[in-house]
Amino acid sequence: MALVARAFGARGVFIDGYDESLVNKVRKTVEYWGGSYFEVRLVSDPKGLVRQWRENGGKVIHLTMYGINLPEVENRIREIDNLLIVVGSEKVEGWYYTNADFNVAVSNQPHSEVAALAILLDRLYKGDELNIVFRDAKIRIIPQERGKKVIRTDEQ
Amino acid sequence: MALVARAFGARGVFIDGYDESLVNKVRKTVEYWGGSYFEVRLVSDPKGLVRQWRENGGKVIHLTMYGINLPEVENRIREIDNLLIVVGSEKVEGWYYTNADFNVAVSNQPHSEVAALAILLDRLYKGDELNIVFRDAKIRIIPQERGKKVIRTDEQ
Repeated sequence: MALVARAFGARGVFIDGYDESLVNKVRKTVEYWGGSYFEVRLVSDPKGLVRQWRENGGKVIHLTMYGINLPEVENRIREIDNLLIVVGSEKVEGWYYTNADFNVAVSNQPHSEVAALAILLDRLYKGDELNIVFRDAKIRIIPQERGKKVIRTDEQ
Repeated sequence: MALVARAFGARGVFIDGYDESLVNKVRKTVEYWGGSYFEVRLVSDPKGLVRQWRENGGKVIHLTMYGINLPEVENRIREIDNLLIVVGSEKVEGWYYTNADFNVAVSNQPHSEVAALAILLDRLYKGDELNIVFRDAKIRIIPQERGKKVIRTDEQ
């Protein structure tokens, strides 16, 4: 989830809980693949984060298959600057449904939170996220028709 | 992965191995949420499947972060009728790189196979997949601004 957020153009990720190994994995990815602006933070009070985000003028989207289907709201949410996207695991408390600015579904079908986040970010960035270049990357893929080619950009 | 395939418009999924519980989970989803055309099959010889698919005139896309970035090939692959998409876990044998018709990356960044599949299907269907209605569904979500609403379509 955090790697999708980074690769698809988010500025950072807040993780509910104390999963230090996850944080380290994401930081490792950032170190090699770039995007040092990308913030990774553990939070112990996710509801407080949502409240504060809104008090600071930001908007909150809660991704849920029960919400309004993305095609109907994508133009509205694309205009928003400070967007916090809440992605839950299987059970999300009702509090988030009532306290988010938007409850958005990526189709009203059961599938995957990771896929939902990817498609939402894709719509926000209109596909440009697939061409992000992380200028501070230490390693970079040179796309190939067949096989793998990775270069180190710090060894030149 | 299989649920993303179903929700995003694939006609079925082949699973390498013998994960019967996964098959049952997908079939359960199809039973309630619809899409009885969606095939779920375990395969013991995935390379044989790839070979046969191509012999029958179909094309094979292997999703890999090392491949050609999707925006460069999406128009070409959208024209193809019988498409088999190969999605691997962490390590995929070189055989697939040489035997696929296309090695396609969804950005050349590390993230998630599920996200990659979702974005690829989204490009193939130009976003229409978010509005698929499964007419044979037993339950259906009525999208809500807040909260959850699910109806049984067989109790009317």
